[in-house]
Amino acid sequence: MSRPEVVARLLAALGDRVDTTESALERARADKSGHAATGRPIAVVRARSVEDVQATLRIATATATPVVTRGAGTGLAGGANAGDGEIVLSVRAMDRMLEVRPDDLLAVVEPGILNADLNRALQSHGLWWAPDPASREISTVGGNIATGAGGLLCAKYGVVRDAVLGLDLVLADGRLLHLGHRSVKGVTGLDLTSLVIGSEGTLGVIVGATLKLRRLVPGEVRTLAATFPDVRAAAAASAAVTAAGLQPAIMELMDAASLAAVHALLRLPGPTPGAAQLTVQTDGPAAEGEANAIGAVLRTAGGTVSIARDAADGEQLLAIRRAMHPAMESLGTTLIEDVSVPRSALPAMFDEIDRIERAYGIAIPTVAHAGDGNLHPNFVFEGPEVPPRIWDAADDLFRAALRLGGTLTGEHGIGVLKRRWLADELGDDQWQLQRDITRVFDPAGILNPGKVFAS
Amino acid sequence: MSRPEVVARLLAALGDRVDTTESALERARADKSGHAATGRPIAVVRARSVEDVQATLRIATATATPVVTRGAGTGLAGGANAGDGEIVLSVRAMDRMLEVRPDDLLAVVEPGILNADLNRALQSHGLWWAPDPASREISTVGGNIATGAGGLLCAKYGVVRDAVLGLDLVLADGRLLHLGHRSVKGVTGLDLTSLVIGSEGTLGVIVGATLKLRRLVPGEVRTLAATFPDVRAAAAASAAVTAAGLQPAIMELMDAASLAAVHALLRLPGPTPGAAQLTVQTDGPAAEGEANAIGAVLRTAGGTVSIARDAADGEQLLAIRRAMHPAMESLGTTLIEDVSVPRSALPAMFDEIDRIERAYGIAIPTVAHAGDGNLHPNFVFEGPEVPPRIWDAADDLFRAALRLGGTLTGEHGIGVLKRRWLADELGDDQWQLQRDITRVFDPAGILNPGKVFAS
Ligand SMILES: Cc1cc2nc3c(=O)[nH]c(=O)nc-3n(C[C@H](O)[C@H](O)[C@H](O)COP(=O)(O)OP(=O)(O)OC[C@H]3O[C@@H](n4cnc5c(N)ncnc54)[C@H](O)[C@@H]3O)c2cc1C
Ligand SMILES: Cc1cc2nc3c(=O)[nH]c(=O)nc-3n(C[C@H](O)[C@H](O)[C@H](O)COP(=O)(O)OP(=O)(O)OC[C@H]3O[C@@H](n4cnc5c(N)ncnc54)[C@H](O)[C@@H]3O)c2cc1C
Repeated sequence: MSRPEVVARLLAALGDRVDTTESALERARADKSGHAATGRPIAVVRARSVEDVQATLRIATATATPVVTRGAGTGLAGGANAGDGEIVLSVRAMDRMLEVRPDDLLAVVEPGILNADLNRALQSHGLWWAPDPASREISTVGGNIATGAGGLLCAKYGVVRDAVLGLDLVLADGRLLHLGHRSVKGVTGLDLTSLVIGSEGTLGVIVGATLKLRRLVPGEVRTLAATFPDVRAAAAASAAVTAAGLQPAIMELMDAASLAAVHALLRLPGPTPGAAQLTVQTDGPAAEGEANAIGAVLRTAGGTVSIARDAADGEQLLAIRRAMHPAMESLGTTLIEDVSVPRSALPAMFDEIDRIERAYGIAIPTVAHAGDGNLHPNFVFEGPEVPPRIWDAADDLFRAALRLGGTLTGEHGIGVLKRRWLADELGDDQWQLQRDITRVFDPAGILNPGKVFAS
Repeated sequence: MSRPEVVARLLAALGDRVDTTESALERARADKSGHAATGRPIAVVRARSVEDVQATLRIATATATPVVTRGAGTGLAGGANAGDGEIVLSVRAMDRMLEVRPDDLLAVVEPGILNADLNRALQSHGLWWAPDPASREISTVGGNIATGAGGLLCAKYGVVRDAVLGLDLVLADGRLLHLGHRSVKGVTGLDLTSLVIGSEGTLGVIVGATLKLRRLVPGEVRTLAATFPDVRAAAAASAAVTAAGLQPAIMELMDAASLAAVHALLRLPGPTPGAAQLTVQTDGPAAEGEANAIGAVLRTAGGTVSIARDAADGEQLLAIRRAMHPAMESLGTTLIEDVSVPRSALPAMFDEIDRIERAYGIAIPTVAHAGDGNLHPNFVFEGPEVPPRIWDAADDLFRAALRLGGTLTGEHGIGVLKRRWLADELGDDQWQLQRDITRVFDPAGILNPGKVFAS
């Protein structure tokens, strides 16, 4: 069927939910990865209900048209990028919280609700949903689930995978499935809820989620920062905190290049050259004691520690970490990588980054969620496309992470940017098996084609 | 190929690992579910290595012979029962701990290690693996993973699903896959580790596991028991504990019929007729304060509370709960059910059990992991087979749990005993989809045929 005919069918079924303005089509070509799809999608459907999603997918199946599901488009792997001939299915307008049950510590939501809006709504119930990507003000809960997002607090409070009880999923052919249940426990059949978490739009469209909530943590947070002569010392110090059996709520590491860029952006006095920093926050009733204990470990590990006087002072310490993304954007186009290694391998991974920087003659400003071994090395370059030399360096980085027992991506996903390396991590047999599983959900391969699985 | 020929091939490849003695074949027909397979398997292979498992599966694939993987055979759903013409693949002898990493809080183990043996080995490292099925002294880690086991501590410390980083899986055709990774975080491709957890031997044979460990909880535990005039009051009291934001390590509920049976078995004075009991344990540095706070909530809810004087006294309180299984066995053959509901629905579920007891004129002694809404109603009968009338009552029970937003099985699995109801919970579309996923792993359907998926 011709593209105009597909659009005509969408318009007939979905009326004003279909947006074909040039600006909408253009915007849907890219997420925040710095990469855009080739060509332009044919329409953006702004679904307002499960039925809208089903209607869109029935038309897509009948006309063999590819569909790219989109939340807020803040992804860093190109997963939501839509190109030539594709339908964009935006669920951003399905943004209601349908139910909240403090007694069962659960909420039922539509996928388009922003993470931070959800948490503001939950606050009056004394509850929160723990996954806290740095993008929480701008990313959707459905997108968080589809990518298996993490965040700053996840070493202590878990990632998305730990915080979802059930999902409603519309398949490629428009059928609606209810996965999981409202009970805390359940082992009936295969755990498809977990399979859909992190599946990046390849298995179906998430149209509803039953979320596992936590009670708000009582007490005040304590924040401290420690500087170290070099990044290896900072990494070793963070490992020492974990090894001491201490569990900070947040433990973020910034290397010298990151600190320099952020200090420049925020017009702060320049940091000590070469020095790296750990920013740590504790929470709960024992926050003060834990902060002191962590401070002692960091001092023993060679750190210069300053403890925030109050909450505002603490926020200022964390603001430096939070300014990382804008600081990188101010330098050029950024490819934000996301390797994750066992915690004990964090110092070795920084050695590898150092080696790669020398080998390729580039700087790789790196921050890390040190509490769980997840690093974000940033490659900065000129122009819209990642240069081959940068990909070579990234390739080197990925292989180093795999050698250390780690993974390509701790929280951002594969999307289009990392699909080349997927089989290196999974092995060919597992790659094929995973691919075949997507075909059970989506036999014609119309859901996010070319994403995650390269061909 | 004829059965003797299959056995001959196994013997040629695996020699003394192949056991065809009558007693071994007979024992492999049943697990602890009270149900046995029809007919007898042709051989029990006692694998000692990954290669043994691969060799067995290659022969099974080449000869189209069904394979039933077996851990310790303590399952309660008939999942490990092997019948006419099947090969039993026991991994019980693959019982080594291969690696332990306190700094990364992980251990790598073979599947046949007993849960309690693993935890004894971890203790000297100051570590433990949290899943604690009541069968921990007699069940394997591989079996715990294959069933997605829970336990007494899981409301606070999580179930198996929360405690596995990676799995090594041998497919039906003998190929070995490495799923997951050693890092805490990772979202590369589909989460097959989670998919295999709870898959009850239908997707492959788990030959290795990378487990997520916890540090031993410091401090002493505190234990208390509270009696209530009836089970509904006890259930409401447990919900009040959760609603108060208190998190016991253990919170077990026993109804009057359970208490009566246990008291009779242990020759204790008979309990107050009709009375139900909650047994609660707190742990960690704040154990004492939490126990007092929980005691206060239980008193307000109408309970008569007694706090254990010391650890030994506390163990005695819990011993009553731990004697439930033998107490039921002393009454007759037992079908242990395992429905799970949202915590707030616990009182309503007890009302349903009461209704079913009256409707069918039977007693259904019930215990519950009250902290997470998982109930074990026990059906006791004479003779080896579940009578149709009991199945009718169980059917009524399952439907009630589903109506309340719950699930057929919180931790024991579907096996053969609950496969009739699987489509009622999943819906036909999801049933078929799950079934099709098993075919991707096992195209010929030789792995645990007839288990979970009925046909
Ligand atoms: C400044 C900044 C900071 C960030 N910090 C973090 C961080 O700390 N941790 C982290 O994990 N990520 C982070 N991210 C990345 C991004 O915000 C997350 O991946 C987020 O979860 C994406 O949500 P979204 O709604 O924008 O999804 P989109 O970008 O719209 O989509 C992401 C993927 O999910 C699919 N998808 C979206 N919604 C659905 C649905 N309803 N059903 C099926 N598939 C769907 C899309 O097809 C695509 O493959 C950051 C991004 C930015 C720009
Ligand atoms: C007294 C008693 C108390 C119990 N308490 C609990 C409890 O509190 N919580 C709970 O969850 N369960 C409980 N159980 C049930 C049982 O112990 C668990 O299901 C346990 O996890 C089974 O382990 P196993 O090694 O005996 O597995 P088996 O019974 O041998 O097998 C169980 C299933 O897993 C499959 N399987 C086993 N090993 C593998 C492998 N390596 N690879 C692939 N598939 C495999 C089998 O094919 C079968 O389908 C209890 C049982 C008894 C008898």
